[in-house]
Amino acid sequence: MTYHALDNKTILDDVRSRPTLKAVFSDTSALEAEEVGDGNLNLVFIIRNTKNPVEAVVMKQALPYLRVAGDSWPLTRERVRYEAQALRLYNELTPGLAPLVYDYDEEMSLLAMEYLGNHEVMRHPMVARKRFPKFADHLSTFLATVLFKTSDLYLTGLAKKTMQAKFINPHLCKIQEDFVFTNPYMTSPENQWNPEIDPEVQAVRRNTPLKLAIAELKESYMTQAQALIHSDLHTGSIMVNEYDTRVIDPEFAFFGPMGYDIGAVLSNFVLNFASHYAHTSNRAERESYQAYLIETMRELWSQFAAKFEQLWIENNTGELAPNAYWDYPGGDQAFAEYRRKYLNQLLQDTAGLGACEGLRRMMGIVSVWDISSISDNRLRAVSERFNIRVSSRWIMERKSFNSIEDMLGIVQEEVAGLSLP
Amino acid sequence: MTYHALDNKTILDDVRSRPTLKAVFSDTSALEAEEVGDGNLNLVFIIRNTKNPVEAVVMKQALPYLRVAGDSWPLTRERVRYEAQALRLYNELTPGLAPLVYDYDEEMSLLAMEYLGNHEVMRHPMVARKRFPKFADHLSTFLATVLFKTSDLYLTGLAKKTMQAKFINPHLCKIQEDFVFTNPYMTSPENQWNPEIDPEVQAVRRNTPLKLAIAELKESYMTQAQALIHSDLHTGSIMVNEYDTRVIDPEFAFFGPMGYDIGAVLSNFVLNFASHYAHTSNRAERESYQAYLIETMRELWSQFAAKFEQLWIENNTGELAPNAYWDYPGGDQAFAEYRRKYLNQLLQDTAGLGACEGLRRMMGIVSVWDISSISDNRLRAVSERFNIRVSSRWIMERKSFNSIEDMLGIVQEEVAGLSLP
Repeated sequence: MTYHALDNKTILDDVRSRPTLKAVFSDTSALEAEEVGDGNLNLVFIIRNTKNPVEAVVMKQALPYLRVAGDSWPLTRERVRYEAQALRLYNELTPGLAPLVYDYDEEMSLLAMEYLGNHEVMRHPMVARKRFPKFADHLSTFLATVLFKTSDLYLTGLAKKTMQAKFINPHLCKIQEDFVFTNPYMTSPENQWNPEIDPEVQAVRRNTPLKLAIAELKESYMTQAQALIHSDLHTGSIMVNEYDTRVIDPEFAFFGPMGYDIGAVLSNFVLNFASHYAHTSNRAERESYQAYLIETMRELWSQFAAKFEQLWIENNTGELAPNAYWDYPGGDQAFAEYRRKYLNQLLQDTAGLGACEGLRRMMGIVSVWDISSISDNRLRAVSERFNIRVSSRWIMERKSFNSIEDMLGIVQEEVAGLSLP
Repeated sequence: MTYHALDNKTILDDVRSRPTLKAVFSDTSALEAEEVGDGNLNLVFIIRNTKNPVEAVVMKQALPYLRVAGDSWPLTRERVRYEAQALRLYNELTPGLAPLVYDYDEEMSLLAMEYLGNHEVMRHPMVARKRFPKFADHLSTFLATVLFKTSDLYLTGLAKKTMQAKFINPHLCKIQEDFVFTNPYMTSPENQWNPEIDPEVQAVRRNTPLKLAIAELKESYMTQAQALIHSDLHTGSIMVNEYDTRVIDPEFAFFGPMGYDIGAVLSNFVLNFASHYAHTSNRAERESYQAYLIETMRELWSQFAAKFEQLWIENNTGELAPNAYWDYPGGDQAFAEYRRKYLNQLLQDTAGLGACEGLRRMMGIVSVWDISSISDNRLRAVSERFNIRVSSRWIMERKSFNSIEDMLGIVQEEVAGLSLP
């Protein structure tokens, strides 16, 4: 079908024409569509069966609006394609940890997927200090499985490079290259920061050892095609409820360094941790939630590392260092040592790459709701300074890290050094 | 034109039909073709003007023979495409340092290029201890220019990733992954080695720290898309004469770690260095040539590093760390420090990746003429042991290297420790 933008009426005809959506609806005679997108790049429809409203799908369609730049249409189309490809892979590798993809129509730039009516975007309830007891287990499974199974540890070189060729995603990569790894640390017109922390922000921009380290991390982001990473895995890209966890919006997906995904989650936990200095004056409540956050971070890494290593032991089918390479007296211990070193390098990458995501939220184009929802600039500055200190130390000290405790220890040291207003 | 294999007669019609070849021949009435290929994967014709034999071209055509594996045809076609793409890029970036490409016909899998009748493949004259005074200057220009200008230091992210997508070269990569970084260091049926050095070969295959380091280097080869590398730049891929240097056969080209190309050249110099213990019993002659080799290696790295840095200072137009990132008080020194660290990392990569190329030539599927031409196994073993020691030390000690003198110092220490038979 030639591309045409759908509306609340034509989308229903489209839904009815797709055999792939038949299984979702017991009856398509009483469907109703609601367009809930911001109308900027995409249309987003929720389609419900009014006779049984738990039956619903989300339809996302790229819009061909010409912008001033003149080339947003190919870019938005491309975004939907990367999102569809990555979600389908998630469905295959980690069923139940991402929305189901029902259909993807390349010509129509139209993605049909599961409606997550019982989930909320994780960032908001974390500001309200809500706990998600299954989160560390679920997300560690997601990360271990997707990262391992798209890496050279699991795939043949041919399979990995063939997949990599489908995820050359230069335009979305550039957004992160600029806004996570470069512009926040220099003079750039889009940067925004709290005037209360201007001295700290300017100090980061003049801190040569820190900037050298960030440039090194940026090189890894730009060149290290280790596995298919989500590449925007902050707590706004995760939907949760008490029982369930879903990773959404993988439009930035490409083959990059694994540590960026794990690090983005951990650094967003630090951002949230820091925000509670402003969100509550009840010390016991704050400390209890912060302890939960620390424990969740510890569990997320520990379970990730254990699951990743277990997958590796059981499925060392990739090219990187096949079992035959370790087939000699002492080879078992050598392989175990290789895994230990690999995971320790990954921990260090996680700290450094994740901390760039944390740091840029203090001084770049986009903050996070955890911080930006703090209306009192002086209180907000407490949270921001805390985060700048932790992120800077994660970056500068990462090469000495041997355990998740080294990362968490820095958070706790900065808590101990804090003088609250 | 639909694909058909050419012969000594039809190739002349083909040549005459190509306007791109008109400039080469003053007259096409008396052309003569000679097929000089091994008839295995490609046809290779030399076409001369018999009225003026200095006018000549080389025509390389992939052959559609089905092999047992059943898929050699797409692979050989693909090889010619990568070779044509890379040579054209070399022609553009470093004119005069690779054969000129006159034409490339995708449908016919046919590459027309400059005939290098006055050059010889570098490996052979190096066994005969011939010197090439311009080599370090020429090859350092080639390496500095091609590696810099295909990296994120020079190109925009979009330009680099678009180019990278044209060089996803999984089949040729796998050859190096297996035969440079894996199989030589384990039991594998194709491995060959001199029975005299069996203890040393078996020791490498059981040397856990060395194998961990090689696996780490292999990961860099498989994942680090730093620049367009030739990826098979031994002295058999370089044609030379006293005045001129040409890089040939870039069919393995892909986006990989820069150090692999520089390292392949240096390690092939070490192989040649070691071979002269067997090729001559004239000590003065040997030592004089070995001193020339050391000086050429020193010059190659030093000139490479100087040219690379100069290109960078003058053309810091890529995404990685733009000039604006260093625009603060002290930023000039910071940028200088970043360049120093980058080049030092590259030196360490060069040592490690190059040494894998050296090591595998002692115990993998393919030796090199420098070594394999030594008929006396005991003499050959002297050269081979020397090379195993130097290569192993380059791999194990690379992270302490700060200068090319550290690499050359190891060669000289091993000379000092040598007891000749």
